[in-house]
Amino acid sequence: MLDWGLYLTTAQPDGENERDILQHVLEFSELAEQLDYHSVWLLEHHFTRYGLCGSPLVMGSHLLGRTSRIKLGTAVSVLPLEHPLRVAESVALLDHLSSGRFIYGVGRGFFLKDFEVFGVDVKRNHELLEQFTEILIKAWTETTVSWDSELISFPEVEVLPKPYTLPHPPLYVACSSPTRTEWAARHGFPMMMDYLNSHAEKRAQTELYNEVAAEHGHDPSEISHMLSCVGFVGDRSALEGVVKDTMIWWEYEFLRASKLFEPEFRDVRSYEFYFRQRETAKLAGRWLPEHRAEELLNLNPNGSPAECIERLNEAIEGCNIGLVVMGFEALRDPGLIRESMTRFAEEVAPHVASSMPV
Amino acid sequence: MLDWGLYLTTAQPDGENERDILQHVLEFSELAEQLDYHSVWLLEHHFTRYGLCGSPLVMGSHLLGRTSRIKLGTAVSVLPLEHPLRVAESVALLDHLSSGRFIYGVGRGFFLKDFEVFGVDVKRNHELLEQFTEILIKAWTETTVSWDSELISFPEVEVLPKPYTLPHPPLYVACSSPTRTEWAARHGFPMMMDYLNSHAEKRAQTELYNEVAAEHGHDPSEISHMLSCVGFVGDRSALEGVVKDTMIWWEYEFLRASKLFEPEFRDVRSYEFYFRQRETAKLAGRWLPEHRAEELLNLNPNGSPAECIERLNEAIEGCNIGLVVMGFEALRDPGLIRESMTRFAEEVAPHVASSMPV
Repeated sequence: MLDWGLYLTTAQPDGENERDILQHVLEFSELAEQLDYHSVWLLEHHFTRYGLCGSPLVMGSHLLGRTSRIKLGTAVSVLPLEHPLRVAESVALLDHLSSGRFIYGVGRGFFLKDFEVFGVDVKRNHELLEQFTEILIKAWTETTVSWDSELISFPEVEVLPKPYTLPHPPLYVACSSPTRTEWAARHGFPMMMDYLNSHAEKRAQTELYNEVAAEHGHDPSEISHMLSCVGFVGDRSALEGVVKDTMIWWEYEFLRASKLFEPEFRDVRSYEFYFRQRETAKLAGRWLPEHRAEELLNLNPNGSPAECIERLNEAIEGCNIGLVVMGFEALRDPGLIRESMTRFAEEVAPHVASSMPV
Repeated sequence: MLDWGLYLTTAQPDGENERDILQHVLEFSELAEQLDYHSVWLLEHHFTRYGLCGSPLVMGSHLLGRTSRIKLGTAVSVLPLEHPLRVAESVALLDHLSSGRFIYGVGRGFFLKDFEVFGVDVKRNHELLEQFTEILIKAWTETTVSWDSELISFPEVEVLPKPYTLPHPPLYVACSSPTRTEWAARHGFPMMMDYLNSHAEKRAQTELYNEVAAEHGHDPSEISHMLSCVGFVGDRSALEGVVKDTMIWWEYEFLRASKLFEPEFRDVRSYEFYFRQRETAKLAGRWLPEHRAEELLNLNPNGSPAECIERLNEAIEGCNIGLVVMGFEALRDPGLIRESMTRFAEEVAPHVASSMPV
């Protein structure tokens, strides 16, 4: 059985207003619960209309308060940007208040300005993610925790409350590079896989994960990953245009706001993988946002229910996926988003099996 | 007309467990809405059972999600401990998601360990509170904001979303010292007044506020303050014992966790006011937690409805109080807390007029 979730990016393309975007978050979350979606997933972005949600913990807490069964995940919370003990406290609170409906998904962040503003060294965000995750787990599972490293130090404290979920709430890791995949595998953390990697890349990534996980004593056949997708259910000729336009806007805003491929990032070793990926795309003549949007439409479920089912089966095959999280906001019109949400839940998801080994 | 609110400290006295304390927060908030309480107020504490809520923004967001009319305030959010742009984003999100039901109350913090752990200079927390508040308001009301001072610097950014409430959500300031009172008055921020200052002190404080506010162009008769109280409605002989015991525990835990009167704080100039207050209490032989608990019972509304009404009228007279926020958790038994909440809303609050000038 495959679980299905809903991505809410809270992106604000030109011509939309903040108030509507944020009110729709409430409406779509409630509809998702009615339609038996497994979970809603929120992103963290700062200082950009790429996403209006600066705190998926604060927004997620509200959505959990308005609902009663659906889970709420972060995809991702940018852990290096906050003090890990503050995060440990907040996640444990969310876990209690929602009686265990919170899922904590972490990533290291891509947007240069966030690191500049919050005073965090972007060059060390790999290390920060790893140490902070270790601190979180200690804070949740041990009576007291203290830390003393080059990156962060604090005296011994008792972090309260301890989580509602034992030993701690589920922790997912955003993985697209091999470095991150290997780290997740060593710890047995499930992966959040990217909607922009090719199916072959995702399968290779899963093989790498399984190998490393097994070496570290985790049974990979028991670890179910999440795949995020962007798409729609309906007539391709009517809907593809607007989705593609939104995706192009989103990609341009990503490049503008993240500065990922600008000179400031050249000497940041931890983004080498993305530079190489881009070089490869450039050699293939496929590196513009317009090309990315095309690829995205080719890789992700969209079109009739039968087409969506076929795409999804392709996308998850060999990847131990137990949960697919769909984003429909590129459709922009709330009525069309509701329709795709409904048709996905009724005509697509129930007809796709998880790709976990049987 | 006086508004009345509910304080939820989430304190965990010995013998209670975290899970129950946090579940009761949900239950009491929902009851407060049914009983037409104006608002629920949450505290921020770290690493102590004095209060289990490390993030009143995260917990408040949840309570706003579960309710539909009642407002939610922080009393206080310790602003110097967080990056102000992160706070600006989160408060604006809360304001949107709740359609304007969020009230942001700030303070500078008392607990030494918080400052040590989060790497903030406790000696400068006055200045941090003042600069960070200025940054918040700029972030909410101006298109972009940048800052460059000895305490905090960041490049120009557009903080998103802008608030739902214009020009920005209500901002209250915790005031017990003259320094803080004068600062609040200069800006016309309403005060959150302390349940432990005597009535004479509160009236003197209000006079100081009114004078300074008027000097700075604010009409003090239009600024309505908040008073927090701790008490119960019911038979004094049956209930006073347990309330007193809880208050004594709470005071001891405050001293232990805050370290306010320990050597580490001796050279922190910004706490001089509290040292002097304590010296005065010592000279009067009334400085132990046991004495504080007695004073608290003398100053705050408790006993029969008639007694509570009398106490409240005394406490708010001459102080321009439009909102009284009651804490009942010292009763410990959830049934007794619900009963006091109900009787306060039905038999006490409607019979007390606000002390705003008519």
